[in-house]
Amino acid sequence: MMKADPRAMLKPGSTIGILGGGQLARMLALSAAPLGFRCHVYAPEADSPAFDVSSAHTIAAYDDAAALASFAAAVDVVTYEFENVPVSCVQALEALVPVRPGSRALAVAQDRLAEKALANRLGATTAPFAPVLTRAELDAAIIAIGLPAVLKTTRMGYDGKGQAKIMVPADTAPAFAAMNDQQAVLEGFIAFSCEVSVIAARALDGSFAAFDVTQNEHRNHILHRSLAPAGIAPATASKAISTAQKMAAALDYVGVFAVEFFVVQTPAGETLYVNEIAPRVHNSGHWTMDGALTSQFEQHIRAITGWPLGSVKRRGPRVEMINLIGDDVDTWPALAAEPGTKIHLYGKREARPGRKMGHINRILGRG
Amino acid sequence: MMKADPRAMLKPGSTIGILGGGQLARMLALSAAPLGFRCHVYAPEADSPAFDVSSAHTIAAYDDAAALASFAAAVDVVTYEFENVPVSCVQALEALVPVRPGSRALAVAQDRLAEKALANRLGATTAPFAPVLTRAELDAAIIAIGLPAVLKTTRMGYDGKGQAKIMVPADTAPAFAAMNDQQAVLEGFIAFSCEVSVIAARALDGSFAAFDVTQNEHRNHILHRSLAPAGIAPATASKAISTAQKMAAALDYVGVFAVEFFVVQTPAGETLYVNEIAPRVHNSGHWTMDGALTSQFEQHIRAITGWPLGSVKRRGPRVEMINLIGDDVDTWPALAAEPGTKIHLYGKREARPGRKMGHINRILGRG
Repeated sequence: MMKADPRAMLKPGSTIGILGGGQLARMLALSAAPLGFRCHVYAPEADSPAFDVSSAHTIAAYDDAAALASFAAAVDVVTYEFENVPVSCVQALEALVPVRPGSRALAVAQDRLAEKALANRLGATTAPFAPVLTRAELDAAIIAIGLPAVLKTTRMGYDGKGQAKIMVPADTAPAFAAMNDQQAVLEGFIAFSCEVSVIAARALDGSFAAFDVTQNEHRNHILHRSLAPAGIAPATASKAISTAQKMAAALDYVGVFAVEFFVVQTPAGETLYVNEIAPRVHNSGHWTMDGALTSQFEQHIRAITGWPLGSVKRRGPRVEMINLIGDDVDTWPALAAEPGTKIHLYGKREARPGRKMGHINRILGRG
Repeated sequence: MMKADPRAMLKPGSTIGILGGGQLARMLALSAAPLGFRCHVYAPEADSPAFDVSSAHTIAAYDDAAALASFAAAVDVVTYEFENVPVSCVQALEALVPVRPGSRALAVAQDRLAEKALANRLGATTAPFAPVLTRAELDAAIIAIGLPAVLKTTRMGYDGKGQAKIMVPADTAPAFAAMNDQQAVLEGFIAFSCEVSVIAARALDGSFAAFDVTQNEHRNHILHRSLAPAGIAPATASKAISTAQKMAAALDYVGVFAVEFFVVQTPAGETLYVNEIAPRVHNSGHWTMDGALTSQFEQHIRAITGWPLGSVKRRGPRVEMINLIGDDVDTWPALAAEPGTKIHLYGKREARPGRKMGHINRILGRG
């Protein structure tokens, strides 16, 4: 591992700018404080959960040039909590202040076609896919790829939004209509045995560290539970991590990121399919807050401030994370009484259905 | 253990008021956020480190009745980060909002004579002591207790402030002068083999949980290093914890507190002397932030909000905490590169000599 250059390390007392004010920004701010950093959160929503734990905030749109310029002048480095911040916003900031990860990684991660092309170019397998803008392209893609398949907008999708399954030909018309004339991609359906993710960090000096590969269980397209380490073969886990490392290097990435994979059982063993890359801290890495020596949030702060990466050592035999979605959060009195269950609530005032309100972590015994 | 009454539990989204804005308030605020609480910090100093991680703050004196009333109206419960907040301030707030721990515990902890009397009444041993207001009382106390001895103001002492050693009779006059006509206490010198502390919590329902007894090493009267568990006999540790529990029960205490003890080796084994009680989270409990399943800060938040106490389980064979005093903090680049060393900086702008700037925690192997 290369040694971090002390001259490149941002000093304690410096201010980190964060685009986006949701729970990820909140947990970044909570992890920045112990390293001596202040946080300035920029978000359009006046009730952003991250404001409560930050020393400064700006309420403005992502295309407000004057607000962005003031923000840039007030901070020493900028990062973002989600990949749907406009690339133009990040580019405007990059002219004024270091932005990590930068606009190139953001642009690739915002585009399902670009991220699949990158994965393929690096030798990683993806589901078969084809770009779809017109109905004729969709029909041709269905013939080429077969059914079942999933039609996804190339941009702005998360938690199952912007996706439509096509199980039988009759699903084609409504799926196409749901894309609303946006650029989309048809993906062949992968009959996976499990979904896993690599949460890793790449530092300013190119050094790399991955947490244990995490196994993820979704409900209604939203992450329900993560378990680390994943129940996959060690060779599969190593391959997932090396794929993530190659992707980060190709993007000259700085910060924490996630790569999601499908694992398919074949007679020859486990095969990995890259699903997508998230250029940010990730819900499936929340277990690291209590289950690893360094949390993904501290790791991201270390990476973007030019600090050396922290230890990714796991703190117990197995660690699980369970999301509290919507009114799941009403179970807080019972959760508070469970010895050793670590509670992380996001300070959101209203528990709407499907809204991520918090999560819990538990360190479990063996097997 | 009694079960916490869910009706007495403060709901996530509630606001905790904290008197004092230093590092202890800052770490309380950082631990309150994951439980869904907001913090409102009240402190006279405009550059208080806790302001950076709190949703609201008030800059006002502790005797500003109007500011205290507004503060009380804005919060659901009040706590304090240090025992030198005026009892009158806490009493004024108690008329308006629950204050935990309350003014009774605060009054005892502010008065070395009262805390020693309490310890003795509960059957715990203290160094021999005598109240001293006049020079004649001091001379009589020296005859009764013998030399060496330590003269301490009964109030407002911390980190060795308000203390003077009397090794030989010639030290008497300067020691007395240094007390500046304040009520003082002469304490017999205890030739201890080590200093230990119990960090424990008492919940609203009276349930009690203590972290492992911690061994403390001071330099220049300031805590330098803590190690948990302390290198003392299990029976000594149990006795220290039961003494702490009795003191908390006698004060009807709610929250985290520390009791410091001297350990003296005698032919019959180890003997404990109560030194003092701190009605708050304590520097010697900072190791719990990384070294226990629940930190002392989260535990305090749980106690004062009526939540059940969290697990006090230690996270490794041994845990050490080292304070970063004054320009010790300049070693941050080297500390940042130590794998597994957890850094906690307090966000103070100026590293004055003797000022607590941060600390580090390390989980150590056996032996």
